[in-house]
Amino acid sequence: MGMTITQKILADHAGKKEVYPGELIMCKVDIALANDVTAPIAIKQIKALGAKDVWDRERIALVPDHFVPAKDIKAAEQVKMMRDFAKEFNIKHFWSEGRVGIEHALLPEQGVVVPGDVVIGADSHTCTYGALGAFSTGVGSTDMAYAWLTGEVWFKVPEQMKFIYYGKRQKWVSGKDLILYVIGMIGVDGALYKTMEHTGEAIRDLPMDDRFTICNMAIEAGAKNGIIEPDEKTLEYVKGRAKRPYKLYKSDPDAEYSEVYEIDVSKIEPQVAFPYLPSNTRPVTEATHVTIDQVVIGSCTNGRISDLRIAAQILKGKKVNPNVRCIVIPATQEIYRQAMKEGLIDIFIEAECVVSTPTCGPCLGGHMGILAKGERAVATTNRNFVGRMGHPESEVYLASPAVAAASAVFGRIAHPDEVVGSEN
Amino acid sequence: MGMTITQKILADHAGKKEVYPGELIMCKVDIALANDVTAPIAIKQIKALGAKDVWDRERIALVPDHFVPAKDIKAAEQVKMMRDFAKEFNIKHFWSEGRVGIEHALLPEQGVVVPGDVVIGADSHTCTYGALGAFSTGVGSTDMAYAWLTGEVWFKVPEQMKFIYYGKRQKWVSGKDLILYVIGMIGVDGALYKTMEHTGEAIRDLPMDDRFTICNMAIEAGAKNGIIEPDEKTLEYVKGRAKRPYKLYKSDPDAEYSEVYEIDVSKIEPQVAFPYLPSNTRPVTEATHVTIDQVVIGSCTNGRISDLRIAAQILKGKKVNPNVRCIVIPATQEIYRQAMKEGLIDIFIEAECVVSTPTCGPCLGGHMGILAKGERAVATTNRNFVGRMGHPESEVYLASPAVAAASAVFGRIAHPDEVVGSEN
Repeated sequence: MGMTITQKILADHAGKKEVYPGELIMCKVDIALANDVTAPIAIKQIKALGAKDVWDRERIALVPDHFVPAKDIKAAEQVKMMRDFAKEFNIKHFWSEGRVGIEHALLPEQGVVVPGDVVIGADSHTCTYGALGAFSTGVGSTDMAYAWLTGEVWFKVPEQMKFIYYGKRQKWVSGKDLILYVIGMIGVDGALYKTMEHTGEAIRDLPMDDRFTICNMAIEAGAKNGIIEPDEKTLEYVKGRAKRPYKLYKSDPDAEYSEVYEIDVSKIEPQVAFPYLPSNTRPVTEATHVTIDQVVIGSCTNGRISDLRIAAQILKGKKVNPNVRCIVIPATQEIYRQAMKEGLIDIFIEAECVVSTPTCGPCLGGHMGILAKGERAVATTNRNFVGRMGHPESEVYLASPAVAAASAVFGRIAHPDEVVGSEN
Repeated sequence: MGMTITQKILADHAGKKEVYPGELIMCKVDIALANDVTAPIAIKQIKALGAKDVWDRERIALVPDHFVPAKDIKAAEQVKMMRDFAKEFNIKHFWSEGRVGIEHALLPEQGVVVPGDVVIGADSHTCTYGALGAFSTGVGSTDMAYAWLTGEVWFKVPEQMKFIYYGKRQKWVSGKDLILYVIGMIGVDGALYKTMEHTGEAIRDLPMDDRFTICNMAIEAGAKNGIIEPDEKTLEYVKGRAKRPYKLYKSDPDAEYSEVYEIDVSKIEPQVAFPYLPSNTRPVTEATHVTIDQVVIGSCTNGRISDLRIAAQILKGKKVNPNVRCIVIPATQEIYRQAMKEGLIDIFIEAECVVSTPTCGPCLGGHMGILAKGERAVATTNRNFVGRMGHPESEVYLASPAVAAASAVFGRIAHPDEVVGSEN
């Protein structure tokens, strides 16, 4: 019987011909990533073991992005621990302030992760790299420490789910809207410890940035990983970036799936996930009564260049509503620079947005835009749990950059068409 | 007998013909400013008094800049209190995130403070506006609440000190170096509750940005205010900005000063203030052994456009030393945009600097670049007290943007000539 792309990658990395859902395997790891929240825990374990060397100094990625530039002394100490560890063990991929970006935007951009990889990260949104046709998933800091020493990690091979997207997207409907729609459909545990394989003509039609967004949010349905078969758009993206050889995997036509969903994207309008779950989705037209205090456009989910282009298209020549602060965070320095070159940053500042240096910042209630009691935000981020962006009595509404930018203009959740009309 | 510029401004605002050092006076206030640290205290007092109105809704300035965009829930609540107060009392000059800048750069830029004003601010660096030929000084939040209700504040008229600067500045020597030199000369209490009036050909030769820097640091010598007589450069700056009529005051030739200092600026090289006092100054050539971890270019002291131009001149085509993170913070959105237009931000990002949205941030150990234990920073800010930028065992070295940028390149304190040689 055939295997899915996920099974093939895992089998190759486990040195097996085949793997089956439910099977426990030891896998070779290509890249093992940690950030300023999780790396210090792994580093302490490495130190406690008295290790003098790591498995491979070129396969470990250290990205301080959550509370950076350091928001307080504790954050500074965490980054310092990473810096000292990187120096002591001669870790190749450590990004310091000014070189750093949000981990899940940075690693693909810098060609550190490539198609066919097994990537583990001590961060739940590590699943992002599935968009490259890689197997990638979040692990705990203890597994991370083990992988740093051995280059291996154990997995239970996940059940395989297939999502087939067809039809033509409505205007303004992005990868974010598709994945919010799907999470709304299956629930936050709808893919628990399973693979979400996204396929079909409407996926092939999506730019890479949107595919990253879709795979990024696999964890919000409980999935072990999200994945998309590489195609010519993937290759175009990888070309000139990849720092290592890579392998393109595809699912066999007779691969077995526990569930198959078919989704007509032409029926989906821009989505909004209401508090306090990413699955609390509604069409934006049913959300326009919600007044807001803050908008955040950024994060590992939606801080890429095409996200900023869409936001700028909507904000151009407009002003952010006086009751709203709109915080725009390019996900990496490269994206920041590109956005500047294209005049997007100028549009944002003229519209009276905050433009921040790359950081996870507000997404996880870290810094750079925390909500007070009773405040509401529309965010292009990935989670809207209780207190996620600040006070336990604040609220986060998840949406696409287009909806977020439109909402910034109106001071309430808004459909992008309300701003730009039908002329674009 | 004649009066100084400071005495004349105070006399006019006290409704008197003359005022004398030591005299207690009640003064009319033109602008009363508070930030996100101090405004909430004043607002609570106003609320506790049950006040239904303020003295003049156009004369109060509310600038949340210290922990903004909100670094945590507490910061968010502080800003929310300002926002709600501004709305309830219809305060004209409230800047929200995305519109805000660092208060002491913002108010002159926006023409809210003008020459001849009496300005009080619940922030010690309110003395900055002396560069416009205004009397401006820091007050406590209780005095601020009183002023918001009555438009008045009491002062003891300060003793008058005169600093006469002559000669031609050496290359790279800026306003920052002159004021650090003077503070080093007279000590951190050398001007205690006195006026520092800066005058002479070398002051008239200075651009406005440097004059703001000089007056900004008056408080670091303990002064009540710093002041510079307005001239054609002041008028050039104020033109097109001033939101109100203004009056130009000058000191009488026979005005009386308690001390007069004459300073030959040609003998001053770029200065560095060592921990833990702004008066611990040495010439930069005696500081080049100090290795560093961080550079901060920004703050109400040195985050203006000419500061960024100088830093960019030095960083152009260079990379920040890999052991250093270099954080650049334009002081206002207007400066940010102008710097972008001139290509300075691109130079900074190419050099691998962090470019932050306007905030006081690291200057006061707030956020956006806090130091870990044992770390050292060169900063263009104004204070280097114990723990000022983070851990009590971290260190801050105060310097000009030129010295800070050069130090970023070398990873140690450096003279700008070491980077650019003598070709520029």
